[in-house]
Amino acid sequence: MAASAGPEIERLISLLSKLPGLGPRSARRAALALLKRRDQLLLPLSEALSQAATKVRTCTTCGALDTQDPCAICADPARDNSLICVVEEVGALWAMERAGAFRGRYHVLGGLLSALDGVGPADLRIKTLVERASANGVREVILALPATVDGQTTAHYLAESLAQAGVSVTMLARGVPVGGDLDWLDDGTIAQAMRARRPA
Amino acid sequence: MAASAGPEIERLISLLSKLPGLGPRSARRAALALLKRRDQLLLPLSEALSQAATKVRTCTTCGALDTQDPCAICADPARDNSLICVVEEVGALWAMERAGAFRGRYHVLGGLLSALDGVGPADLRIKTLVERASANGVREVILALPATVDGQTTAHYLAESLAQAGVSVTMLARGVPVGGDLDWLDDGTIAQAMRARRPA
Repeated sequence: MAASAGPEIERLISLLSKLPGLGPRSARRAALALLKRRDQLLLPLSEALSQAATKVRTCTTCGALDTQDPCAICADPARDNSLICVVEEVGALWAMERAGAFRGRYHVLGGLLSALDGVGPADLRIKTLVERASANGVREVILALPATVDGQTTAHYLAESLAQAGVSVTMLARGVPVGGDLDWLDDGTIAQAMRARRPA
Repeated sequence: MAASAGPEIERLISLLSKLPGLGPRSARRAALALLKRRDQLLLPLSEALSQAATKVRTCTTCGALDTQDPCAICADPARDNSLICVVEEVGALWAMERAGAFRGRYHVLGGLLSALDGVGPADLRIKTLVERASANGVREVILALPATVDGQTTAHYLAESLAQAGVSVTMLARGVPVGGDLDWLDDGTIAQAMRARRPA
């Protein structure tokens, strides 16, 4: 890639290019930026990665990533124990938290059911979800899964699995996103928004 | 950003978002990818960064980055001492090496003259360039600088500074890039390619 740059730089570029969003070219740019800012960026990033590697773990209750187990959300006494929001991955949990519209507990599935990718129920944290949902005091499980085929397959499977738990199972509303111009929206979204229309 | 993710993850995301090509959103995705692949990606990257920080240095002759000083190119006895190719940054040097069209020596300026950004001749490695160009056996200095206003200003300044060195000063040809469709090229490039036309 950079024939003359020495194996240390080559290795750095090759690892950086494995990050999502970085290809070989942007990995080279990132490596150069790091090497130019050794004290402000390269060394702090190396340290932050090693800190994350030693300190961050998966919460055994909900599956989120945190430096404590149970995680800060599971440990927060102010949050509503009667609501569990099911998300595919930690990234979705972070997005929900940024939106600030939910103050209950979470459950990270760790993926979606997918016949194509060979992901079955045993590969996901479904058993512990049913256990948590069956506990005293849980009223509602909200499925915040992607509006994709795999997301919907998983949602149906979870709804069935949770039937015995005696909780209501809901899912996020579908409709026109905030700032969404009808011109740019796909037909499926428009059709769903029309079917789910409500008084203005 | 990710209110509930703990300070270690926050810090990792914030450092990653300083890399060129990564914004806050892609930095979060990258952090998640790292945390999910601790042994294959997170720890190796941390180690590669720390290796690069300790081992990679700037070549005192040409300004390139390498683990040895003089760098591998400056130390290579097979390369042509009579040619010096001047580049803005190490990234351009790597690009030249990938193209494989040059087997002489390099000189990394470390930037371009820019009145707007307050970069003057003393901020660049111009004095050492003139010294190297004045040495015995150097025939030609090739200016491989960007075809921008600052690049051209710098090229003119270097051509004047090198006049006393008794070498010929050349620059990369301008024209239609390989695979370049005229429909998509800017007018300036087409005009330059027309002026510099040659027998087919």
